[in-house]
Amino acid sequence: MGGVVVQAIERAERSVIDRLAACGVATVHEAQSRTGLLAPHIRPIQSGARVAGSAVTISAPPGDNWMVHVAIEQLRESDILVLAPTSPCSDGYFGDLLATSAQARGCRGLIIDAGVRDVRDLKEMNFPVWSKAVFAQGTVKATLGSVNVPVVCAGAAIQPGDVIVADDDGVCVVRRDAAAAVADKAEAREANEEAKRVRLAAGELGLDIYDMRGKLEAMGLRYV
Amino acid sequence: MGGVVVQAIERAERSVIDRLAACGVATVHEAQSRTGLLAPHIRPIQSGARVAGSAVTISAPPGDNWMVHVAIEQLRESDILVLAPTSPCSDGYFGDLLATSAQARGCRGLIIDAGVRDVRDLKEMNFPVWSKAVFAQGTVKATLGSVNVPVVCAGAAIQPGDVIVADDDGVCVVRRDAAAAVADKAEAREANEEAKRVRLAAGELGLDIYDMRGKLEAMGLRYV
Amino acid sequence: MGGVVVQAIERAERSVIDRLAACGVATVHEAQSRTGLLAPHIRPIQSGARVAGSAVTISAPPGDNWMVHVAIEQLRESDILVLAPTSPCSDGYFGDLLATSAQARGCRGLIIDAGVRDVRDLKEMNFPVWSKAVFAQGTVKATLGSVNVPVVCAGAAIQPGDVIVADDDGVCVVRRDAAAAVADKAEAREANEEAKRVRLAAGELGLDIYDMRGKLEAMGLRYV
Amino acid sequence: MGGVVVQAIERAERSVIDRLAACGVATVHEAQSRTGLLAPHIRPIQSGARVAGSAVTISAPPGDNWMVHVAIEQLRESDILVLAPTSPCSDGYFGDLLATSAQARGCRGLIIDAGVRDVRDLKEMNFPVWSKAVFAQGTVKATLGSVNVPVVCAGAAIQPGDVIVADDDGVCVVRRDAAAAVADKAEAREANEEAKRVRLAAGELGLDIYDMRGKLEAMGLRYV
Amino acid sequence: MGGVVVQAIERAERSVIDRLAACGVATVHEAQSRTGLLAPHIRPIQSGARVAGSAVTISAPPGDNWMVHVAIEQLRESDILVLAPTSPCSDGYFGDLLATSAQARGCRGLIIDAGVRDVRDLKEMNFPVWSKAVFAQGTVKATLGSVNVPVVCAGAAIQPGDVIVADDDGVCVVRRDAAAAVADKAEAREANEEAKRVRLAAGELGLDIYDMRGKLEAMGLRYV
Amino acid sequence: MGGVVVQAIERAERSVIDRLAACGVATVHEAQSRTGLLAPHIRPIQSGARVAGSAVTISAPPGDNWMVHVAIEQLRESDILVLAPTSPCSDGYFGDLLATSAQARGCRGLIIDAGVRDVRDLKEMNFPVWSKAVFAQGTVKATLGSVNVPVVCAGAAIQPGDVIVADDDGVCVVRRDAAAAVADKAEAREANEEAKRVRLAAGELGLDIYDMRGKLEAMGLRYV
Repeated sequence: MGGVVVQAIERAERSVIDRLAACGVATVHEAQSRTGLLAPHIRPIQSGARVAGSAVTISAPPGDNWMVHVAIEQLRESDILVLAPTSPCSDGYFGDLLATSAQARGCRGLIIDAGVRDVRDLKEMNFPVWSKAVFAQGTVKATLGSVNVPVVCAGAAIQPGDVIVADDDGVCVVRRDAAAAVADKAEAREANEEAKRVRLAAGELGLDIYDMRGKLEAMGLRYV
Repeated sequence: MGGVVVQAIERAERSVIDRLAACGVATVHEAQSRTGLLAPHIRPIQSGARVAGSAVTISAPPGDNWMVHVAIEQLRESDILVLAPTSPCSDGYFGDLLATSAQARGCRGLIIDAGVRDVRDLKEMNFPVWSKAVFAQGTVKATLGSVNVPVVCAGAAIQPGDVIVADDDGVCVVRRDAAAAVADKAEAREANEEAKRVRLAAGELGLDIYDMRGKLEAMGLRYV
Repeated sequence: MGGVVVQAIERAERSVIDRLAACGVATVHEAQSRTGLLAPHIRPIQSGARVAGSAVTISAPPGDNWMVHVAIEQLRESDILVLAPTSPCSDGYFGDLLATSAQARGCRGLIIDAGVRDVRDLKEMNFPVWSKAVFAQGTVKATLGSVNVPVVCAGAAIQPGDVIVADDDGVCVVRRDAAAAVADKAEAREANEEAKRVRLAAGELGLDIYDMRGKLEAMGLRYV
Repeated sequence: MGGVVVQAIERAERSVIDRLAACGVATVHEAQSRTGLLAPHIRPIQSGARVAGSAVTISAPPGDNWMVHVAIEQLRESDILVLAPTSPCSDGYFGDLLATSAQARGCRGLIIDAGVRDVRDLKEMNFPVWSKAVFAQGTVKATLGSVNVPVVCAGAAIQPGDVIVADDDGVCVVRRDAAAAVADKAEAREANEEAKRVRLAAGELGLDIYDMRGKLEAMGLRYV
Repeated sequence: MGGVVVQAIERAERSVIDRLAACGVATVHEAQSRTGLLAPHIRPIQSGARVAGSAVTISAPPGDNWMVHVAIEQLRESDILVLAPTSPCSDGYFGDLLATSAQARGCRGLIIDAGVRDVRDLKEMNFPVWSKAVFAQGTVKATLGSVNVPVVCAGAAIQPGDVIVADDDGVCVVRRDAAAAVADKAEAREANEEAKRVRLAAGELGLDIYDMRGKLEAMGLRYV
Repeated sequence: MGGVVVQAIERAERSVIDRLAACGVATVHEAQSRTGLLAPHIRPIQSGARVAGSAVTISAPPGDNWMVHVAIEQLRESDILVLAPTSPCSDGYFGDLLATSAQARGCRGLIIDAGVRDVRDLKEMNFPVWSKAVFAQGTVKATLGSVNVPVVCAGAAIQPGDVIVADDDGVCVVRRDAAAAVADKAEAREANEEAKRVRLAAGELGLDIYDMRGKLEAMGLRYV
């Protein structure tokens, strides 16, 4: 059962990717009709990072990080590595040496539905990671997987070249060909939210701003 | 099935609430005979916050945050929102806009047996949250719930107006009518602990301070 | 069923312990053929601590911290407390008073497959803890356990006097009589990694440094 | 901190209890507006049992089953034991000897947010149990708890004398003073369901029976 | 945000589907290079069922089963319903009435990454279900979802019309256009296994049948 | 890193093993002072089996079942296979072919802190299994592990040749050299329990049989 490495993948425009990064996960997720989120067990190892990039995907056997080395060669500036094990695994596939190599190729971060290690070094290097676990358990290099094939990572279907957005709220995937349209909607949403934030901060109620009182009464809400 | 909003709830004295905040969760929990803790899956999204407030409770359908808007109108200075979904849910019921609105009404924080989002913003706003999850998953506004009814949140029964104490150790609820007595006991406990801390720091052993050696021997402890 | 306290345990050389601390968990784990890790549910309550010490072990009943007092008397400079409950438990066995006492005797930290509390104080005291949970739930002092007996803590078999290494990646145990040899291998590994880090940072690929291309081709990896 | 045993509790009518048993958990839960369910981690150890009874509640320390003996004396014909530990615990509080004793007093079953053991014997005795775990871990008899006090069991608030309904779907609690009204609604619901079952079995669609097509269209559902 | 119902989906040949059912999950999964398994938290509520069918997929909001009614109209003989909630949920979306309706339309079973209820009835009806939970928690009919769109269910990407195979080992999805080829390979595998079973039952060792001794020695395995 | 196979292990007397099987897990665990239980996530795939045997241990890499073949050659009549992965794993290491081979050599069952598959076949063969998961996920044969070395399986330290007792309550390990003494105590315990069962069935209370009333009163239990 040989693995496959797809070398030519299409990516979204860099400027679109950066606009999505600026909007953040919650806004982007809303802007695409509440789709694309990875499961909440994927958590950042650091605090405050907000990035976006093109997915270079890895389908890896459990406890075997050989394909990470293969994937790193495929990285281009502003890509993000996305690793999905072929069965549930918490082993530490990735540490400071691999991060050094990925960062040297312009990689903006790692999303992994498994474990990482050397997290103190990773944080010092400003290489952001969103993972299922922190676990020093080493891996082997014995079985092939694939690079740049479609994967399901933490419950989300991801194609190579899709845009990954990640921050303290988690991780969201945006289809490559929808990225520009989603960025437009996300920015519109942000603008709209800013106006509401000012009103709410001044003490106005959402019940009034969103005109909810009538509908709540019609549904039968009783004040006692 | 209409929902209910109870508008007039009784609250504990502000000064009592603040005394409980100063004692912290572990001490308050001990002072009321080791009762009132929420389950340990409720974790702070920030580090170092220590607050107390009167519970404004929300019983919300899974994935539906409509009642949060309703509850915010019921908030008074130094209240704490307590949200319990009617079935297990990790969706992000609450983000920076709702926090802005709650904070504008004097709310001191949120306890939620579900998810929150915009956590970077929430931390920057100093709006403390204790939650089951961080998850950007959006919610709808389609089904009624209730506000200021008794709820079970993370395994603890909470009445509206009960005092909520929360810090890095978790969350504890104090019955409103017991709050003053619990504050007295908690402060007495703190004073007592301070004296012990000095002796322990000087190298005295708990075995001697608490006079445990005889009882351990009687129970059959053997030194070899 | 009386408990037992073993008073005379052998420890590794202090200098060896400190060399292991400097190498960190991931490196030490690799240096001893990927063995000795505790399960990944054991997480630090603080960030950035890296310690090693000799294990003083506690086998404690669920929800009963009496034996911690007994164990503290057995602590020597640079020891680490290791607590394994006899059945799964998340209660808060340990807080700031016990930490004060342990620290007064030179203890370098706590590893506990259960809960701790007073975590804000513990962090301020620089008393590092790796635990399964943060939970204010108090414990009783009613049933005996044992001190300095072999335990299984978070899936790892630990003998009293074994060397415990702990950092942000988790916790690893090193057999006492293998500690010097493991320290040698770990340091050699570190030296070797440093050279690789320089080459990787310069953009060289792991595929080339580790000479993987031929083997991958032989295994059937296809580039498309 | 002494415990309390409340001896005189009120119970619902036996005939009402038996009517609720006949309706089963899902129907009773719907009949009381989707309230009262225990969390889904409470599972039957047997298959096919369907019972109801009056709750005799036990608030027990973790890993300590002393209060079970105390509670058994309080049992009356058709009661059900409900045990909630004061902190999370999976130990085996209950086995065949306690079941023999409870059954001798007319007890109809056990609901426990912890573990049980001797499950082969319990099944042979036809003593039904709904538990969080099966675990042979023994318990001690060292610390007091309370009997017939309000408890939160698996996320549901339960008063002594409330009616417990349990079957293969899980466990539901019905307030004692609402039991007759809930039984009426549950039976009405069952009758109504029977008519629908016949129509659905004949191939009629829920879309038509419940007249959903118009509302779905109005909401924007598109057929493509 | 309206939902979509795709009415015309392609299905695999009935005979191919039935051949896959006969092979079972473990064999089919191996026959397609160890791909397609749903996560192991999806468990059968019954014992001994082995089925296959064409996927009619449902993307449903958390706690809202409206789309199940919509999906049932799309069922054809030998289909299997596959429900994926848009965020994690354990509510009981499906019970005996819906099963009656689905069965009347020839549906062979349900795969659901959420909860079901009325499980005693479902088993008596011989309507097989593989679910994440058994939970009586009711759902609402307030928000649209979609039918026969691509979903990720329990970590597996599923297209409408893909073949679902399910038995006591779990659930596996086979791409519709690969179904015939996978059935061929699975049957070949079964034939091959039968010969090996006879030799193993006679006491021959896998070490000899698979000729492993040389390779193990070359890898460095030592017998002591 | 080569693996090791220890060929000559000592076993307990067959008659002692069978006496332990007859007593069952809960009794044996009590008879050895409540030690030796494996964690409760290890569950039987069948119902009603009660076995004991000598442990032939396997330390296996995650997702790699090569060592199972090696271990089967080491099996003697009435042994039990015990597999512990070197890092957490749920893959299906074991199915009907391996069971056929193990059974042909007299093996009485499998304890595995990972997954199994072909569970319908295993049950039909009467080959009992206690596992962490049922999962069809296949494994590879690429990396060495060891056979008959000490392992930690589901939190319990197990030496090759130790006696494993397993039934519907879970799994317990008995040190080989303590097996006869534990069997004596377990049988004495059983005899004692039988007498109590008769008295409890007749309606006598544990409070009286165990003479608990005085001690409860002394501890402060209040009847109200």
